[in-house]
Amino acid sequence: MDKKINVALLGFGNVGSGTYTAFKENCELISKKVGAEVVIKKILVRNIANARRVDAPAELFTTDFNEILNDADIQIVAELMGGIEPATEYMLKSLAAGKHVVSANKAALANALPKFNEAAKAAGCMLRYEAAVCGAIPVMGAISRALTGNEITKVSGIVNGTTNYILTRMAAEGAPYADVLADAQALGFAEADPTGDVEGFDAANKLSLLTAACFGVYIHPDDIDRTGITGVTMDDLKAAEAADCKIKLIASSEIKDGKVCASVKPIQVPAESFLGRCGSEFNAVQIDCNMAGPIFLQGKGAGPEPTGSAVAGDIIEIAQAIVNGTASKQPETAIL
Amino acid sequence: MDKKINVALLGFGNVGSGTYTAFKENCELISKKVGAEVVIKKILVRNIANARRVDAPAELFTTDFNEILNDADIQIVAELMGGIEPATEYMLKSLAAGKHVVSANKAALANALPKFNEAAKAAGCMLRYEAAVCGAIPVMGAISRALTGNEITKVSGIVNGTTNYILTRMAAEGAPYADVLADAQALGFAEADPTGDVEGFDAANKLSLLTAACFGVYIHPDDIDRTGITGVTMDDLKAAEAADCKIKLIASSEIKDGKVCASVKPIQVPAESFLGRCGSEFNAVQIDCNMAGPIFLQGKGAGPEPTGSAVAGDIIEIAQAIVNGTASKQPETAIL
Repeated sequence: MDKKINVALLGFGNVGSGTYTAFKENCELISKKVGAEVVIKKILVRNIANARRVDAPAELFTTDFNEILNDADIQIVAELMGGIEPATEYMLKSLAAGKHVVSANKAALANALPKFNEAAKAAGCMLRYEAAVCGAIPVMGAISRALTGNEITKVSGIVNGTTNYILTRMAAEGAPYADVLADAQALGFAEADPTGDVEGFDAANKLSLLTAACFGVYIHPDDIDRTGITGVTMDDLKAAEAADCKIKLIASSEIKDGKVCASVKPIQVPAESFLGRCGSEFNAVQIDCNMAGPIFLQGKGAGPEPTGSAVAGDIIEIAQAIVNGTASKQPETAIL
Repeated sequence: MDKKINVALLGFGNVGSGTYTAFKENCELISKKVGAEVVIKKILVRNIANARRVDAPAELFTTDFNEILNDADIQIVAELMGGIEPATEYMLKSLAAGKHVVSANKAALANALPKFNEAAKAAGCMLRYEAAVCGAIPVMGAISRALTGNEITKVSGIVNGTTNYILTRMAAEGAPYADVLADAQALGFAEADPTGDVEGFDAANKLSLLTAACFGVYIHPDDIDRTGITGVTMDDLKAAEAADCKIKLIASSEIKDGKVCASVKPIQVPAESFLGRCGSEFNAVQIDCNMAGPIFLQGKGAGPEPTGSAVAGDIIEIAQAIVNGTASKQPETAIL
């Protein structure tokens, strides 16, 4: 295949290495779909000497973002670093330089979505972030494409795996929060500082992105009514069980009196409902539509390869558009 | 809004009227997304005097397909008639005339998908058929877009509502097939001639389209190993229950020894699995991916508004592409 689309990855942690694996494993299939070879040309890391989850040729790595920014052959930048800065700066600079951007970074995107949208529009570039919300679940695509014939009336979901794991184990074992958290940390299911997950910040970031796509309204995560799971007691869990319910950390946005109301909080959901049955290894999203009725999506919300495959899907969509000469004229994911 | 995209509907039965309703109800939202007004300009019907599920202005109706074909202002034709002919002729003529085509017609599409694909390519037109497979569930979009970073290893689903209804009631009530079928017919859940549903022909059509999208391989529905539900006995259902299973009509394609194997047959699935829990009003599809793991999608697989909303979503995607000048260069749903 003569044609090449060059991609840079910013970050080579879980998501970066998962994305790399997806392209390596599914290389032939992807080339067929794109009609060009998709090549990972550069990978930005903090320290080249660090040990890696996945091997990649040493010449791909760089610690200098400008090497990527100034490389005119790199047409797509996939930002997979996490954190608000320097991710925001790198994404905005990439767009300003005419590079299309894919991101799995809910914190940075949710913090300034209108700014990213405007930067992409001004540059005639695509901005995609399927992987930022519920990992492998194709929820952003569904909302921005197949479900557009509907008015969405409500979106609600279990969008954070760590809290789902903790609540599930607390309920199943009658173990208190602190014990299960410590265990989750030891097993790598929760971070050393679990605040982002257990206080609902991560869920609020994802809900901000979901809300923008579903309702065309941007709500900063700080303005989302947010309660984490640290206050969930054994009594709460027992009361839920007695009512044939489960307590889940539900992120939810809906139209009430013409206004979008968004919240993240632990609530009772019927044990036999779609969200109630969502096992701790999965994320799940329910989208209520005025024509289609409820649409249910479930899949892995985290993990290197699931999330990496969603990043790969976005890169492939952009690469197809580049090959077809349509990349400057594709609809946005969220039309604000 | 000055810009207008004109659409013709072929057929105004359940799906046609549901599509019309979606555009009427969500008109403002759709115009905002498209950046143009989407207007249903003509509706082809067999008999103008027939009673309609939904009212539409009399001047929209025509019994002459050529009135649509020869109207240069009509850019999108939505074929919602069902049956292989004249639907196939009309779709091919529409494409040849440079009109983009949306279809909910699994029988016609599955019967000649490569021919439709080639005709669309030759004409530089878009062909979309989200509504043809599982009504409102955004499954074709997910396969052809968000999941492209994966090799799909298996797709399996409950894709026919009538048989799911019959099997669910047989199991729940211990009622024999013939009784439940008669009841389903009286309630409008099964047709007077139920063959297409109960013998698995409808499921085979959908599986042919799913297989093409997932694996890039076209299998004619007649070549799919197919068993309907007419042979399912009360003993079968009792044996399933004893094994904590349910009998569901499962349409499934997977790669075995490098070859795609497709089948439609009633089989036992664990009662607590995603497909086992799919209630009779829903369709459900599980897509197994080599990176993402399993992805589960559930929603309404039939009904005027659910199916119509999927047709509307396809029309909107095409209308956006027309407005953006990219409609002649969009990736196909199934790359064969």
